[in-house]
Amino acid sequence: MAISAALKLPSSSSPTSTFSNPKNPPLKTIIRCRCNSSLPLKTLTTEPHPTFTSVRTFAPATVANLGPGFDFLGCAVDGLGDHVTLAVDPQVHPGHLSIHQITNSANNSVNKKLSTNPNFNCAGIAALAVMKMLDIRSVGLSLSLEKGLPLGSGLGSSAASAAAAAVAVNELFGGHLTVSDLVLAGLESESRVSGYHADNVAPSIMGGFVLIRSYDPLELIELKFPDDKDLFFVLVNPDFEAPTKKMRAALPAEVSMSHHVWNCSQAGALVASVLQGDLRGLGTALSSDRIVEPKRAPLIPGMEAVKKAAIEAGAFGCTISGSGPTAVAIIDSEERGREIGDRMVEAFMREGKLKATAMVRSLDRVGARLVSGIPL
Amino acid sequence: MAISAALKLPSSSSPTSTFSNPKNPPLKTIIRCRCNSSLPLKTLTTEPHPTFTSVRTFAPATVANLGPGFDFLGCAVDGLGDHVTLAVDPQVHPGHLSIHQITNSANNSVNKKLSTNPNFNCAGIAALAVMKMLDIRSVGLSLSLEKGLPLGSGLGSSAASAAAAAVAVNELFGGHLTVSDLVLAGLESESRVSGYHADNVAPSIMGGFVLIRSYDPLELIELKFPDDKDLFFVLVNPDFEAPTKKMRAALPAEVSMSHHVWNCSQAGALVASVLQGDLRGLGTALSSDRIVEPKRAPLIPGMEAVKKAAIEAGAFGCTISGSGPTAVAIIDSEERGREIGDRMVEAFMREGKLKATAMVRSLDRVGARLVSGIPL
Repeated sequence: MAISAALKLPSSSSPTSTFSNPKNPPLKTIIRCRCNSSLPLKTLTTEPHPTFTSVRTFAPATVANLGPGFDFLGCAVDGLGDHVTLAVDPQVHPGHLSIHQITNSANNSVNKKLSTNPNFNCAGIAALAVMKMLDIRSVGLSLSLEKGLPLGSGLGSSAASAAAAAVAVNELFGGHLTVSDLVLAGLESESRVSGYHADNVAPSIMGGFVLIRSYDPLELIELKFPDDKDLFFVLVNPDFEAPTKKMRAALPAEVSMSHHVWNCSQAGALVASVLQGDLRGLGTALSSDRIVEPKRAPLIPGMEAVKKAAIEAGAFGCTISGSGPTAVAIIDSEERGREIGDRMVEAFMREGKLKATAMVRSLDRVGARLVSGIPL
Repeated sequence: MAISAALKLPSSSSPTSTFSNPKNPPLKTIIRCRCNSSLPLKTLTTEPHPTFTSVRTFAPATVANLGPGFDFLGCAVDGLGDHVTLAVDPQVHPGHLSIHQITNSANNSVNKKLSTNPNFNCAGIAALAVMKMLDIRSVGLSLSLEKGLPLGSGLGSSAASAAAAAVAVNELFGGHLTVSDLVLAGLESESRVSGYHADNVAPSIMGGFVLIRSYDPLELIELKFPDDKDLFFVLVNPDFEAPTKKMRAALPAEVSMSHHVWNCSQAGALVASVLQGDLRGLGTALSSDRIVEPKRAPLIPGMEAVKKAAIEAGAFGCTISGSGPTAVAIIDSEERGREIGDRMVEAFMREGKLKATAMVRSLDRVGARLVSGIPL
């Protein structure tokens, strides 16, 4: 039985909720916690009992880096992401987790690329981290993952899986953990698959824009984009593989002082634009990276032309999403976003000889959430 | 006769006003203008007539850099700054400017360090730039400057003189110029005496916190610190000369990628903290510069100990103001600010063998202003 009665309905089509447990405090502007401590972080004196036999969660895709926000800024994207279904399973050894299946949402096919060994799967690692935090020893769990995001697209695919899984375990056991705990669990997963970076997993869990101020201790700053403003992301994903490691190797070891000052000022302008709801300023700052994008864009065929096409078509700004290959442009209207997307797809084909697909998405202001649950 | 009837009275003890002319628009969040165009920027079709025979203006001191805000962020400090008195003077050749006298506010003595040749004086250069913008050909002006700020203290002394002078000329002729024009005039002055940097002159003119997003075109972002929050600066000025050129030469030509990312994230956190009114976050970010402060602090005897003493005494953060030698700490209470200042002064003496003076000032939210005027 779905617990739709207790649920809030955001813009996504599925019934959804924010974290439902009153012990889980509302998101604060600044969230601080230790992250150099070894897991588990004991937050309960006794092992919690499950409050659901099964839960279904969703975690959104994310755009990290955002140009001059390289490695410390990310935001969540509405209506695109991964689902996790998690159930109490008497057939699984108590305290253990089994991955039942991994499917691709697009065609409901079995995903054969990802491991079903929980220790080698983003969702599995995050789920196990939360189980460890909660000290789950008496119940075995079975997890199914539905990938709504392509791998290696630069839209935080691994982070969305980790976020959905972390929230699923937490919700199944009554939602005792804080947002910081959940980000730490996600970070545990991210560090094993793509590096110790929270700029995807933090916004996937928290929604909106999130700035990672520090890792030791972990300090996250929620940057609230005004509710009364529209912000659309034009996401154009070419048929091209841009492995994170290769894209990271393209980075310079050192940057000139003048480029440093420039990018710092753009990072400041980016943050100000988000908080002030200044979309044009956001676009300008997003487009102004002189350090990372100039090194990475040439590795993605057509990217420079795609950016040019987006701006010429009226986008306020355009850059590489995460480490690519997806290009992200921003605009204030869904319809104009579609037109911009068409021009970007054309540019990928014309200049990069790459097929690409475009979609227009708004900002996800909610983050990872409980979709439904069957109470015990 | 002072025009106190038309004046607003902010926190300063003198009767003051914001820019009084309706043609001078209120400060906008983002101010854009070209700055690569050669002066004069024609904003009027005919030469304006003076509306006052004499005006008196004030422009506040400023704290630039603010740690990770190096070279693009600054803020104005209340109750400390320079005054300019500007009069229509029939004895001065029409279209020309004469500097009548320069005095030190502290003891009303004549200042002998600064040139009274308008072409070699911060106030003179800015006043002439505004006269050129307004195309003043028919009236001669006489300017007196009262320095309330010590030179080379790192508190934007030259910028305050330039700002007070630029605003004086503009107000005398009816306030036709925009804030951007005034910043450009101030920048003309700054570029001749301390480099092409607007991070002192823009906040001195505009008040509050100002982010310089770009110079070409000039784009300034006003970062509004919430009105309902108290912010105090503890400014500790040691008896030591830290020439801007020497402090600039101490900067590294290149920075490591990891330091770049760190400082960028702190710059973002600094901007977020200002806009969100998060004083602790502001202090933490202010204190977290890993690029500039570590190179400059060792050049100011005792600075590292002063910072440590400030933090130990409860300051939320501490860094070098501008290029020094003044140390700036921030706190939310004037009384605690005085205690922190005492500890900082002690540390300068103990570790740097330097005499120092401390003062506690709040944020100036107004910027350069008309204090009084004698109408024609």
